[in-house]
Amino acid sequence: MVIVKGGVTAAKGFEAASAGAGIKYQGRTDMALIYSKKPCRTAGTFTTNVVKAAPVKWDRSVVESGVKSQAVIINSGIANACTGEEGYGYCKETAAAAEKALGVEAEGVLVGSTGVIGMQLPIDKLKNGIREMAENKNASLENGTSAAKAIMTTDTFHKEIAVSIQVGDKTVTIGGMAKGSGMIHPNMCTMLSFITTDAVISKKALQKVLSEDIEDTYNMISVDGDTSTNDTVLLLANGMAENEKIKYKTKEYEKFAEALHLVNEYLAKKIAGDGEGATALFEVKVIGASTKRQAKILAKSIVCSNLTKTAIAGHDANWGRILCAMGYSGAQFDPEKVDLSFESKAGKIQIIENGRAVNYSEEKATEILSQPEVAAIADIKEGTESATAWGCDLTHGYIDINADYRS
Amino acid sequence: MVIVKGGVTAAKGFEAASAGAGIKYQGRTDMALIYSKKPCRTAGTFTTNVVKAAPVKWDRSVVESGVKSQAVIINSGIANACTGEEGYGYCKETAAAAEKALGVEAEGVLVGSTGVIGMQLPIDKLKNGIREMAENKNASLENGTSAAKAIMTTDTFHKEIAVSIQVGDKTVTIGGMAKGSGMIHPNMCTMLSFITTDAVISKKALQKVLSEDIEDTYNMISVDGDTSTNDTVLLLANGMAENEKIKYKTKEYEKFAEALHLVNEYLAKKIAGDGEGATALFEVKVIGASTKRQAKILAKSIVCSNLTKTAIAGHDANWGRILCAMGYSGAQFDPEKVDLSFESKAGKIQIIENGRAVNYSEEKATEILSQPEVAAIADIKEGTESATAWGCDLTHGYIDINADYRS
Repeated sequence: MVIVKGGVTAAKGFEAASAGAGIKYQGRTDMALIYSKKPCRTAGTFTTNVVKAAPVKWDRSVVESGVKSQAVIINSGIANACTGEEGYGYCKETAAAAEKALGVEAEGVLVGSTGVIGMQLPIDKLKNGIREMAENKNASLENGTSAAKAIMTTDTFHKEIAVSIQVGDKTVTIGGMAKGSGMIHPNMCTMLSFITTDAVISKKALQKVLSEDIEDTYNMISVDGDTSTNDTVLLLANGMAENEKIKYKTKEYEKFAEALHLVNEYLAKKIAGDGEGATALFEVKVIGASTKRQAKILAKSIVCSNLTKTAIAGHDANWGRILCAMGYSGAQFDPEKVDLSFESKAGKIQIIENGRAVNYSEEKATEILSQPEVAAIADIKEGTESATAWGCDLTHGYIDINADYRS
Repeated sequence: MVIVKGGVTAAKGFEAASAGAGIKYQGRTDMALIYSKKPCRTAGTFTTNVVKAAPVKWDRSVVESGVKSQAVIINSGIANACTGEEGYGYCKETAAAAEKALGVEAEGVLVGSTGVIGMQLPIDKLKNGIREMAENKNASLENGTSAAKAIMTTDTFHKEIAVSIQVGDKTVTIGGMAKGSGMIHPNMCTMLSFITTDAVISKKALQKVLSEDIEDTYNMISVDGDTSTNDTVLLLANGMAENEKIKYKTKEYEKFAEALHLVNEYLAKKIAGDGEGATALFEVKVIGASTKRQAKILAKSIVCSNLTKTAIAGHDANWGRILCAMGYSGAQFDPEKVDLSFESKAGKIQIIENGRAVNYSEEKATEILSQPEVAAIADIKEGTESATAWGCDLTHGYIDINADYRS
């Protein structure tokens, strides 16, 4: 497996484009297109929120229908959530406009939106954007990057990555782009991720590999515990690598899964580290667990704790808050067996042994916690299972973005 | 039912005292005593956190043993949590010191601690404090207030209340004090509440009335979603009102339950409104639910949402975040049936009807949300059940208290 340049256009046959359609933002791009020369098998995972945005409903029906997809149209600025029948109608119109401009089947056109809730899309502007992107699309890495930039909301940097693996004598590439917690009044953060691959892979294997991997990647990150109405991960495979078909549970499947995991983990970590107001990526590893589930519950509880997140913001080795967050997680464990360490580029330091503080240097701990990427490792000494969760610190910046936005 | 003056000393036969023992704070009181002339039946409810502080373990065994209690010794500054055998030993020593100083049975002495985690209590200072309080205790309302002040950590005001009801021809009084989310490095918020009553009431009725009421009061508040290792509510009944014994599920029981509810709700709301950094009490009512459980899950999800809490801090009628928080709560409902209003002293305004924004005045909404007590009312139009939760806004003050504490 090698990391290669680019994002959604890295895999064979994929093109991208962006446009400044003026949907809500001015002076920047706010639409992105992913186009495949050949129709793609498509897998998707969507928000579990009861309140689902129109694009989520639309994409789910496309993915479940099994129809092949050749284009994804994404906009930032307006989320098309809580917009009723009218909003769902705009998904249909978007697909129809893409059919007209790109010569693809409308039933297979996927859409994605992020931004303000409760506002209707200015559909004519969207249609203009689609026409513009149909003209400008190409397979360059620059166009892939421009698409990754166009979907940003309050993200402070764009997020993309690509990797290649060998499947038999063929090179298979997986590339992706994502956007994280952006907040635009009156709205919430939304996580969108779009992955493209030229692999030949069965429909079943494609959905399985995505559904299984998100449990260890996107579902293990938290910025503020608020699950958006729009969260979507889409995986498109156009088969242009011409490898022997990858089937579920084969050796080649495992290889593909590993590569997809690298892409998803990279994007998920970038989303976590770029959380609103974040100054640090906060990684939490729980090791020595009896079950994976127990490890996950504990890791997520720590990474979601406001008190722990503010301690990280303050570079404070506040182990009491971490033990506390483990304690209310709902998972069982023996607090008097817990070992806890902090680690970063500045070193590693043990803070707790068997549930009690060891005689550690606060100065060294603060130095370790002052890095832009910090990790807490909790060993509960019960078994061999482990899990990792990612989040960020909770800072004044988060309050600025989310409370003071209008004042 | 009438609200009367005072707190824990309002009921007959209860005395209180405070002392500045120098446990961790300097220049303020940090110990409180509640003493009853006659031994009390006692009920208690405790944190569900797996990590339980020593006083929680101690009190639970006292309450479960059925032994009568005549004194509660509380300290602020150090939580006596994650302190192992040594910490539990200090509960025992505290009880023994109280026996010696007050002439009460050590097995019935209750203890409470709040403050730093992982630090051992300076037991000699505690013993000095107990002796001092044994000398100074009296039944005055002032001493009750001084006890309520001594248990504060980062609370910005003390919290106490008392009510009286008639049971037959006797006056029964219930008084209480509580402390809320105080954060002292390296620690977490802790909720402690101590209720005294002179009622004659059966052991079973006493525990039932407390256990049932906390579900609608203390368990419906949230400051930051972090459940402490020390959370404790104790209810002591000394029987000195000489009323006919109150038994479970009788008419008199309901009357007593109503009075206790007023006390608990008052204290719970004060704790929520005095959350760290809070500038507003945020009340959430979910009405029109099919079940009480559904209403509670929805109300708590809204009140715990960081995005909603920052919106309240910004006086922002951000209904998208509220619908979103309802959506990920885990409770089922139809988003397209939801009506939502905001209400405060400045008026009431409807924001959503059937899941869609109505044409409301943002200016009026901001005016309503700029009050120190604001409410959101969500009607899900399914049935007749309802629930109320209380929290506070999430502000720069919370970050200041919890992140910048040491810098």
